[in-house]
Amino acid sequence: MSVSGPHPLDSFFNPSSIAIIGASRDATKIPGLLVAFLRKNQFSGAIYPVNPNYPDIDGLQCYPSLDAIGQRIDLAIVIIPARVVLGALEECARLGVKHAIVISSGFAEEGGDSIAMQDAIAMLAKRTGMRISGPNAEGYYNQVAGIAATFSPTVDVKPDQPRLVASKKRIGIVAQSGGIGFAIYNRAKALGIALSTVISTGNESDLGAGEFLDYMVQDPATDVILLFIEGIRDVDKFLVAAKKAAEIGKPIIVTKVGRSGAGERAAASHTASMAGWTAAYDAVFARYGFIVSNDLDEAVSIAAVLTTSPLPKGERVAVVTVSGGAGIWAADAVSAQGMQVPELSDGVQATIRGLIPSYGSPRNPIDITAQAVHSGGLQKTIELLAQSDEVDAILVVISLSSETRMPFKTAELKPVIDAQSKSIVFWSYTLPSNFARTGLAESSVVVLSGLTHVSVALRRLVNHARFKPVEAVAKAVQAPVDLAEHLTAQTLSEHDSKTLLQVAGIALPNEILVAQKSLLDAAIAKVGFPLVMKIQSRDIPHKSEVGGVKVGIATSAEAEAAYDALIASAQKHRPQATLQGVLVSPMAKKGVEIIVGTLLDKTFGPMVMVGLGGVTTELFKDVVYRPAPVSLREAGDMLDALRGAPLLNGFRGAAKSDVAAAVGLIAQISQLAAQLKDDVAEIELNPVLIHPAGEGVTIVDALVVRKI
Amino acid sequence: MSVSGPHPLDSFFNPSSIAIIGASRDATKIPGLLVAFLRKNQFSGAIYPVNPNYPDIDGLQCYPSLDAIGQRIDLAIVIIPARVVLGALEECARLGVKHAIVISSGFAEEGGDSIAMQDAIAMLAKRTGMRISGPNAEGYYNQVAGIAATFSPTVDVKPDQPRLVASKKRIGIVAQSGGIGFAIYNRAKALGIALSTVISTGNESDLGAGEFLDYMVQDPATDVILLFIEGIRDVDKFLVAAKKAAEIGKPIIVTKVGRSGAGERAAASHTASMAGWTAAYDAVFARYGFIVSNDLDEAVSIAAVLTTSPLPKGERVAVVTVSGGAGIWAADAVSAQGMQVPELSDGVQATIRGLIPSYGSPRNPIDITAQAVHSGGLQKTIELLAQSDEVDAILVVISLSSETRMPFKTAELKPVIDAQSKSIVFWSYTLPSNFARTGLAESSVVVLSGLTHVSVALRRLVNHARFKPVEAVAKAVQAPVDLAEHLTAQTLSEHDSKTLLQVAGIALPNEILVAQKSLLDAAIAKVGFPLVMKIQSRDIPHKSEVGGVKVGIATSAEAEAAYDALIASAQKHRPQATLQGVLVSPMAKKGVEIIVGTLLDKTFGPMVMVGLGGVTTELFKDVVYRPAPVSLREAGDMLDALRGAPLLNGFRGAAKSDVAAAVGLIAQISQLAAQLKDDVAEIELNPVLIHPAGEGVTIVDALVVRKI
Repeated sequence: MSVSGPHPLDSFFNPSSIAIIGASRDATKIPGLLVAFLRKNQFSGAIYPVNPNYPDIDGLQCYPSLDAIGQRIDLAIVIIPARVVLGALEECARLGVKHAIVISSGFAEEGGDSIAMQDAIAMLAKRTGMRISGPNAEGYYNQVAGIAATFSPTVDVKPDQPRLVASKKRIGIVAQSGGIGFAIYNRAKALGIALSTVISTGNESDLGAGEFLDYMVQDPATDVILLFIEGIRDVDKFLVAAKKAAEIGKPIIVTKVGRSGAGERAAASHTASMAGWTAAYDAVFARYGFIVSNDLDEAVSIAAVLTTSPLPKGERVAVVTVSGGAGIWAADAVSAQGMQVPELSDGVQATIRGLIPSYGSPRNPIDITAQAVHSGGLQKTIELLAQSDEVDAILVVISLSSETRMPFKTAELKPVIDAQSKSIVFWSYTLPSNFARTGLAESSVVVLSGLTHVSVALRRLVNHARFKPVEAVAKAVQAPVDLAEHLTAQTLSEHDSKTLLQVAGIALPNEILVAQKSLLDAAIAKVGFPLVMKIQSRDIPHKSEVGGVKVGIATSAEAEAAYDALIASAQKHRPQATLQGVLVSPMAKKGVEIIVGTLLDKTFGPMVMVGLGGVTTELFKDVVYRPAPVSLREAGDMLDALRGAPLLNGFRGAAKSDVAAAVGLIAQISQLAAQLKDDVAEIELNPVLIHPAGEGVTIVDALVVRKI
Repeated sequence: MSVSGPHPLDSFFNPSSIAIIGASRDATKIPGLLVAFLRKNQFSGAIYPVNPNYPDIDGLQCYPSLDAIGQRIDLAIVIIPARVVLGALEECARLGVKHAIVISSGFAEEGGDSIAMQDAIAMLAKRTGMRISGPNAEGYYNQVAGIAATFSPTVDVKPDQPRLVASKKRIGIVAQSGGIGFAIYNRAKALGIALSTVISTGNESDLGAGEFLDYMVQDPATDVILLFIEGIRDVDKFLVAAKKAAEIGKPIIVTKVGRSGAGERAAASHTASMAGWTAAYDAVFARYGFIVSNDLDEAVSIAAVLTTSPLPKGERVAVVTVSGGAGIWAADAVSAQGMQVPELSDGVQATIRGLIPSYGSPRNPIDITAQAVHSGGLQKTIELLAQSDEVDAILVVISLSSETRMPFKTAELKPVIDAQSKSIVFWSYTLPSNFARTGLAESSVVVLSGLTHVSVALRRLVNHARFKPVEAVAKAVQAPVDLAEHLTAQTLSEHDSKTLLQVAGIALPNEILVAQKSLLDAAIAKVGFPLVMKIQSRDIPHKSEVGGVKVGIATSAEAEAAYDALIASAQKHRPQATLQGVLVSPMAKKGVEIIVGTLLDKTFGPMVMVGLGGVTTELFKDVVYRPAPVSLREAGDMLDALRGAPLLNGFRGAAKSDVAAAVGLIAQISQLAAQLKDDVAEIELNPVLIHPAGEGVTIVDALVVRKI
């Protein structure tokens, strides 16, 4: 899983020498803790405390200035008052220090003048090439190399508390919050999940979460990444890292917070108002196969399974339990996540029956009873299921609260786990004791205690196992027509919008704009009854609000009356509007209503969305976004991801919909949005009707909004 | 909250003397553990071990038989081989033992002949009046009185681990699984939640979960009940207890497992197939205000808030945090549950600004920063918010992993918590240390560590605070017409079904059954165009499958043609069917489609359901059940509980629906189902159209199924 070649941050995370500018003797405060934690964790390189007030700190020589050190410095940790930080960093750069972490706070998070101080740091980094993490950072802890460049109390070393290590694989943590980054480590450590490195990115004046993610993706010591973000600043680096992770199959578990900032983004249009401003993040996460988790213990539980088991090949779970009630509960919990708990074959049941007492059950959940634990039946059942092709994962349900009794013979369990033939997950319904955790860690077992978290973890990993990196989207083949010249207004009328789409090569109904009543008959002759007639004006984006739509028109007389009525109604409701005329369209065939749209996200640029149409699905907010452009496969995935997807597949005896045509349209629109990202803010096709298979789609209405 | 008067189980849970039939000296096995745990927990009454093989056990006199004791025995605990249990129980009854707990297993859970042995135990209890818990039970632990009548290792006393008690209120636990019952206790104990009694109900030959629940409801020592059930056997007692709890306002947190047994219940009809077999349980839980939780830690978190805080009066939450990232996460988490995190008023913000550093934030989430913890700002902020009327609950977000530093001055925090003016909940994003738990327990604070669980707990308690016990439903006032005589077939035709409904006083459209074509014109004259015509036969429950429905008929000629076509099509598709004729109905006005139905649940009897109609809502399975009959208020609550409820309230500019008429219909149908529960298995009105306010509802189609 490693990626070859050196990385620019290698010596940031593996420095040979560290200077601590502002070091202190007081090991109860941050400057002192930094020195103490580096030493307690047995940093093998040189430590240079810098502080003119001390000749030495805890036996280490202390230097009056950076200059006085006279040695190469790979990393400077800066913990001095904000106003003198820039000077110290300039000194670092002058002396050839490679990297700096600014722990000091009082910069952008203060607001006011302090923002300028942070900007100056960013400029210094750009100018000199010295890479800077922070300010307001909590540093990092590289557990593999034993480098604790942080004051987080979670890295303190307590000789009376031996470190629990159960997993062979290691997690790396990148967090835009020191508190949370080290809290993830704190919780993972308690479960025995091994760490590579945890980094808190602070204010990201220079080094951002994207670049740190990139380091973790290529770091051979990191097998699984946990990412906590509020908002990505180095978007390009982030996307490069995400793509790389998807390609090499290194899992990223992501928590994105700030989801509830309703009203954060002014969303004028319908499409955008259904988005919520984190929809773009989720779209990017989906594209690159990130595993999204919004709960700390859940995220750590997912990491636990990832670092101890192979990915499940399917969704069939065997629940092996020592308690009937707990086993039923576990079966419910995994079933609630859409997993299967299949009844086992007669053959497997018969074998299990030989391992358990008569009052146990060899079906699934498999109730081996408390008695079979002591007779070795639990282990043998797990072994049997690990070899069976009837299930894809094994959930062991057990009570591990005892401080003295171990339900497994480690020597026998270890080879079963080591074989890595299947996901084998342990849930203890009582709180697991340290004794049990330690004993099972010898067999590389991480004991979990949250049942819902366990079930969600299995579900997410089944989904993750199915993820395939998206192929590159073919460039649009049509000649580079100047589409932007069709952006005739801020908000295009339906007719103008459809003209632009048509020029871009998108199929539209046979419609005619009638600018004067005398031309109506000719238009009707071409379109044919029954008709729809719609008022057209760049000043009237919402036609139905002005009585601007007439449907089911079946005769010329009706059509003429409708024409007059539409013009009159528009003039009454919007006297200032310039009217283009009336659009004459054929009545659309029946079909399943969807919405297809695009918008520009501030962080990630053009996005394409699809949603089931109709009032009910609008109520349920059943929409899916992806970064534009999307391939046909990804467009198909978008439709599949709708909760209403069964409506397209012949729900309750209805005809199957022309999904291929819908997929083609979504991909086309997404390419158009990507192509016009500098000119078009938004496209909305609403509704689009998907007709039965082979009969295509109809774009009933369309709206294009120019980018200001 | 206590209920006066003695309870039949008082001396079961507070015995003065306990005999252990089958006691042993081996304190590593169940018979020995029973003696050891009773003594370790300092049972203050008499303990009589019974076993002919020992003269004494650990210094206690051991008796060769029950007879030899010669003293009154309140409770006998039986742990001897299954085949000799009945004899021992007969001896107990003969000697006037009041209660027995049969720990021994090998009864109904074995199947075969062992079922008969359990039946004999049940009959013995009925015959003699001696109340029996089990067999296959794990007993109980009454912490208030110090009575450990169980072998569960969770009641073991470890002098080096002092008991943590934070909450003043106590939980009682009733569980149909010993493993889970004591696991709930195990987890609650670790958090410092005080216990009254935990009971594992075993096979429930005599005493069932309903009766134990009844005990907990009236027990003055129990403030909050946790209930774990697989299936209720003593339904009447359960319902009495549930009603009592609702009336006195004692919260019950319930976990019902066995939800995923798909196919468990053969559900022939549409209504039932959308039910799932636990829908009736959820309906009963909803009626009595139970708090449903399907996760162990979540249930315990809810209990933690209930035992330490008053119920929140609203859904406005203040998030007070020492870490920016963690605070945003917490705000997201509570918002995801539909709670509000409102920005505070200028006045409150100004006051808070005086308590925190300049880089903190007095908005909401309120980032007091780590520094303000040490300066007392955290405590003062909590105190300020506890007195403010701008929020209903306070979520304190903090890191409590330190083993040495306490962020609160207990003497100052305690009065704020003791005042019980508001829900104050503590979430630690790092794992809380025992030191912190113990320190905060002095202020009656339970520290929680699962953020989603905390958020769900707050949400459930806001909902619970709004719960009001349902008023009794007035008896149907109409004369007791013999409705059963209208049950002319196993599955009634639409016309027969509607006739029955009409006789029962339910308003229906003006429809006429035309049995011969010559009567068609007369029918049309009464009904008026446009018409719907539908084939009627007791042998054709699904009319559309045989082309049996014609809509939009506007002329006599069309009607005559339709008549012939309907008859011909029915004869072609169902040649054996006896035809009643064609039902001529007016075309219904537009309205929001709903489904109203009833069914008989095996456990709880008649149920009424309502669901939004249409294909999309069917896909989303948006249905709500309640036990029938329901009052008007409860029928209104059912409609409100639909996710699609906004569709009835003028969604996106539509007219408001005649909810009052729909509510009336639901209540009427529910009363009918209750009245006919011995004769009718199922009623389904599908669709019912709810017209705009004041225009009523239309029952478009109806189906009544007789109970076999």
